[in-house]
Amino acid sequence: MTSIKISKNFASDNCSGVHPEILQAICEANQGHTLAYGDDVYTASALNKFREHFGKDIEVFFVFNGTGANVLSLQAATDSFNAVICADTAHINCDECGAPEKFTGCKLLTIPSTNGKITVDQVEKFLHLAGNQHHSQPKAISITQSTELGTVYQPREIQTIADFAHTHDMFLHMDGTRLANAAASLNLTLREISRDVGVDILSFGGTKNGMMYGEAVVIFNKNLHKNFSYIRKQGMQLASKMRFIAAQFEALLSNDLWLRNARHTNKLAKLLAEEVSKIPQIKITQPVQANAVFAIVPPQFIPALQQEYFFYVWNKETSEVRWMISFDTTEEDVIDFVRLIRQTIS
Amino acid sequence: MTSIKISKNFASDNCSGVHPEILQAICEANQGHTLAYGDDVYTASALNKFREHFGKDIEVFFVFNGTGANVLSLQAATDSFNAVICADTAHINCDECGAPEKFTGCKLLTIPSTNGKITVDQVEKFLHLAGNQHHSQPKAISITQSTELGTVYQPREIQTIADFAHTHDMFLHMDGTRLANAAASLNLTLREISRDVGVDILSFGGTKNGMMYGEAVVIFNKNLHKNFSYIRKQGMQLASKMRFIAAQFEALLSNDLWLRNARHTNKLAKLLAEEVSKIPQIKITQPVQANAVFAIVPPQFIPALQQEYFFYVWNKETSEVRWMISFDTTEEDVIDFVRLIRQTIS
Amino acid sequence: MTSIKISKNFASDNCSGVHPEILQAICEANQGHTLAYGDDVYTASALNKFREHFGKDIEVFFVFNGTGANVLSLQAATDSFNAVICADTAHINCDECGAPEKFTGCKLLTIPSTNGKITVDQVEKFLHLAGNQHHSQPKAISITQSTELGTVYQPREIQTIADFAHTHDMFLHMDGTRLANAAASLNLTLREISRDVGVDILSFGGTKNGMMYGEAVVIFNKNLHKNFSYIRKQGMQLASKMRFIAAQFEALLSNDLWLRNARHTNKLAKLLAEEVSKIPQIKITQPVQANAVFAIVPPQFIPALQQEYFFYVWNKETSEVRWMISFDTTEEDVIDFVRLIRQTIS
Amino acid sequence: MTSIKISKNFASDNCSGVHPEILQAICEANQGHTLAYGDDVYTASALNKFREHFGKDIEVFFVFNGTGANVLSLQAATDSFNAVICADTAHINCDECGAPEKFTGCKLLTIPSTNGKITVDQVEKFLHLAGNQHHSQPKAISITQSTELGTVYQPREIQTIADFAHTHDMFLHMDGTRLANAAASLNLTLREISRDVGVDILSFGGTKNGMMYGEAVVIFNKNLHKNFSYIRKQGMQLASKMRFIAAQFEALLSNDLWLRNARHTNKLAKLLAEEVSKIPQIKITQPVQANAVFAIVPPQFIPALQQEYFFYVWNKETSEVRWMISFDTTEEDVIDFVRLIRQTIS
Repeated sequence: MTSIKISKNFASDNCSGVHPEILQAICEANQGHTLAYGDDVYTASALNKFREHFGKDIEVFFVFNGTGANVLSLQAATDSFNAVICADTAHINCDECGAPEKFTGCKLLTIPSTNGKITVDQVEKFLHLAGNQHHSQPKAISITQSTELGTVYQPREIQTIADFAHTHDMFLHMDGTRLANAAASLNLTLREISRDVGVDILSFGGTKNGMMYGEAVVIFNKNLHKNFSYIRKQGMQLASKMRFIAAQFEALLSNDLWLRNARHTNKLAKLLAEEVSKIPQIKITQPVQANAVFAIVPPQFIPALQQEYFFYVWNKETSEVRWMISFDTTEEDVIDFVRLIRQTIS
Repeated sequence: MTSIKISKNFASDNCSGVHPEILQAICEANQGHTLAYGDDVYTASALNKFREHFGKDIEVFFVFNGTGANVLSLQAATDSFNAVICADTAHINCDECGAPEKFTGCKLLTIPSTNGKITVDQVEKFLHLAGNQHHSQPKAISITQSTELGTVYQPREIQTIADFAHTHDMFLHMDGTRLANAAASLNLTLREISRDVGVDILSFGGTKNGMMYGEAVVIFNKNLHKNFSYIRKQGMQLASKMRFIAAQFEALLSNDLWLRNARHTNKLAKLLAEEVSKIPQIKITQPVQANAVFAIVPPQFIPALQQEYFFYVWNKETSEVRWMISFDTTEEDVIDFVRLIRQTIS
Repeated sequence: MTSIKISKNFASDNCSGVHPEILQAICEANQGHTLAYGDDVYTASALNKFREHFGKDIEVFFVFNGTGANVLSLQAATDSFNAVICADTAHINCDECGAPEKFTGCKLLTIPSTNGKITVDQVEKFLHLAGNQHHSQPKAISITQSTELGTVYQPREIQTIADFAHTHDMFLHMDGTRLANAAASLNLTLREISRDVGVDILSFGGTKNGMMYGEAVVIFNKNLHKNFSYIRKQGMQLASKMRFIAAQFEALLSNDLWLRNARHTNKLAKLLAEEVSKIPQIKITQPVQANAVFAIVPPQFIPALQQEYFFYVWNKETSEVRWMISFDTTEEDVIDFVRLIRQTIS
Repeated sequence: MTSIKISKNFASDNCSGVHPEILQAICEANQGHTLAYGDDVYTASALNKFREHFGKDIEVFFVFNGTGANVLSLQAATDSFNAVICADTAHINCDECGAPEKFTGCKLLTIPSTNGKITVDQVEKFLHLAGNQHHSQPKAISITQSTELGTVYQPREIQTIADFAHTHDMFLHMDGTRLANAAASLNLTLREISRDVGVDILSFGGTKNGMMYGEAVVIFNKNLHKNFSYIRKQGMQLASKMRFIAAQFEALLSNDLWLRNARHTNKLAKLLAEEVSKIPQIKITQPVQANAVFAIVPPQFIPALQQEYFFYVWNKETSEVRWMISFDTTEEDVIDFVRLIRQTIS
């Protein structure tokens, strides 16, 4: 295993490793025995850290990964005859191999979205399903912040959706895999763009912001607290050596690490976008509000670029690619990549 | 977090932290970028390591935890109208909050077991269900090695069950959360007590033998290979930063670490059993063949003992307790604990 | 189809056809158009008939069959992480091909029963599971009245179980496939042995008491009303031409038809038991309190008997058989069958 | 129940009752005892009747309703990590309250359709999902014949989809709730528009063509035979008094009853369409190829029309309504209804 090349890519923010401060926290937690399954001081301490950020009267449950966080959040908010409304671009719709459907039994009702966001106008058209036994009953709206397309909801946009949801007896779930990037982008706290604007239950991401593994389900709505420990266990997401997830979150939420990472990746995404937008053959396709850059690149050049800095083609037909910035991507990496693009294309 | 007491307990082998060699491997894997979801050199290398132990023509899938390994293994081997036959003491029956039922749709048919093991004679009585549409159709037998009661199947016992399973068109699943302890106990290789005696699909445990997180589903029967990647993803058990599970398994399966840990814990369990069996008020209730000791302790003494070295009461009615040895339990811990017992009881 | 032999058997009370009064009701309902799915006057009228029997403030939902009635009732009373406690002999445990597990996700916790009944003492042992995230949480107790073994719960026995259930935040479900037989046996109303003694939700059987198809889920506990229409539709149990189930129930619950049928079958079961108990080689194994007779018959005689009057062997090992009386079984049939047994055995 | 008004409506073809020939068959089957669950001569005979229509080497399973037929067919053809491709207008997508998702675990991938039909071009765009563990794997295509919009697939259109499905390791399911109408429309046999053009598994409708209840799952592809009896039982769709479904199908498939009914309803739909198309304020919106007429009617007139002959508004926004013809709708009803429309609108 000695010859691992220390390369970088722009494929995803889960291609990076673990932030040194987080790895340090893991190593420090590796002392002696604690009880398993979260009955330990590390977990208690990390939960307090979450309460510092989001308020005291919340419940937090650590899980292994984003699929788990999203699916179990939806399970907590629905019965099997319910429907979940989301953007067609949502991760829960596109990239979970049907885990939401299998585990919750719910139907996903999708809204065509060009920028990853949805609006109340679009949700409204599903209201006619309510009360008719032949149709899955809408019970949750799920939005992603920042979105799968690197865009960010304004707080008032979220509040509008939340108000609509609550008026119509629905819950608002937020897939916050990259909530940190949204907060950094808006220069607001994590709480101000989730709990304070009406979110009921939040998947809070750790892995894509520098953790090794682990996500948190943060429950603001007290009606959703009660049974989550059973949902998590039956959902195969209860870690025995919980302290190692807890220690990571403790580090991530301390000393602004979450924010430093997010600001850094957002900044580099902006830099990358600015630089490549100067190249006439390339067209940026989405506002760059978080740590992703979407761009149309002439298809003949893509393989050569991927050879050096791997990334994914998002849409083969339009030759649109996605470039993601990780916490450990450097300004040098970006400059270097832009130089490569220029050389390759011209 | 500076004041964490470095205590030990005998509650479970998942109360320990991470073995230093494994933590070292994690730290060394924390370099640069790799693709996510297992498409990396660490994973490739770890899979090869598994093949060294179990043979070339196998497939291995890493998952997060034991619940995931067991449930997804059963999912691979069954349809929803099937039944899984297991001991009533099996972890899949007792301690998964119904995850097998929810995720696979199968019924568990349980066999009363006093020592954690089952026999073909006991399985046979379910055969009359076969072919009758009113009954869940037996399709998998699941055994645990070493068992939840610290006992160990002899290879020929497993072979007999495997032959029976295959004769009757069933698969044999092994919950090998503590397979290492069984191999050490029998002085046989991992392969000799699983694949070589007819096991079709194996949950191979890492967490309880010194890893931070991560288990492996090892598939010997080629009929069960095909769809496992989808089962894992839909089962919410696909890790993005897979390299960190892979690196742990690489370390565990190298330089006999798995065996050193298992021998150590087995040895200390035997020591504990020997010492406490000298105390007349205590009665050892199970053969000590792995890293667990089950004993009846007069109930009035239990709280004082738990105060110092926490452990679980296994059966309140009979005042039977379980003491588990972890990889980092020391001979001193055991001696110290025995001394405490003597002092407390006499 | 001209040569169908008009034979009788003692195999099951669903081997009979449709009672003439019920078939008459079906024919009379076959006029003109009504809206589908229960929005019709026949359904409204049948629901009122149920309210005459069970009280005004109930909800009733017609479904196709007993599996549907039982499984959907349990679905209404549970979440997937719950457990349902029942006798090991319960139909939901033995004869539904795992439908309860697949559809509800729950684990069935079974109680060994020799006479088809369970007691609070036996249920109590599962209470230690409550509040522990590793275990399916007991939430419903399901009893069968009359039982699968032809025995009948006394009202106070039911009340005791109901009180226990409610004290421990559980619901009581009654599988009343043969509730009519129990009521007839006890000389009590349907209500007195279900709602009045604490049952929360009832599967009320029609098919085995003379209907062509159709069962009713009768919900006494208002907390279980709300979502049942969605549960039924998603559970594939919503009939479009509902009026034909409704008309059958209207007939069954009018002019004491349900009671006449039940008294008749109970009486003939008693007659059969009395007569065969005079034959020394045969041993009646269960109290005959409803329309079933269980008896041990020397195995060598069984095939010859089955040839003439088919019935099922209940337990091959003990050579125990089950004889069921249908609404259209006649005293002559019984006498004839007893004569055949005498001739065959002597 | 004496004052039931013998009214007619155009709401749905399940608002009618039972065809007299079918009710007659039910009454004739009501003789003596038969074994339950399909082990009877009526069922055997009806299966033979199906084989006369569709060929010898098929399997047929009777179920209660269309939801059951569709969902269980899809269950037979998929694993939970699969996806089913269908029109967004498909009944399985719109009107089953999420039963397909809950019971199969699959995701439905929907194709926007204006006429209820789909084409291979539209299916093709989902092929890129194949082989990627993050996405539900397309395994079945489901089409409806005749469609929910009253249109009919040409045989070669079906064959093209079937060929595509089979080339890409997928099955073709046909929702044939109104297959009879399609066959009558195309002047072809049932077999020529299902099995002979590549359908693997068919939901064959009875209820909407004059039966009281009961649908049939007709399996042409031998790979889907094997486990269906268990799928049906676990799917809560196994009728005990099966003979009464069998007898209905026997009658429906004898003496061209299925065809007579279908021709009649198709003819009247055409008549209705012709007549209303003469009314300038009304616009027919779909080709009338089966027994449904879709039309845009000025919204202010709809309530008055519904008062006399109830029907459903299909699309509130466009004021599009659906008129369905039932087997017992008469030419007089149609003429009368058209007259009413004229009077109301002018």
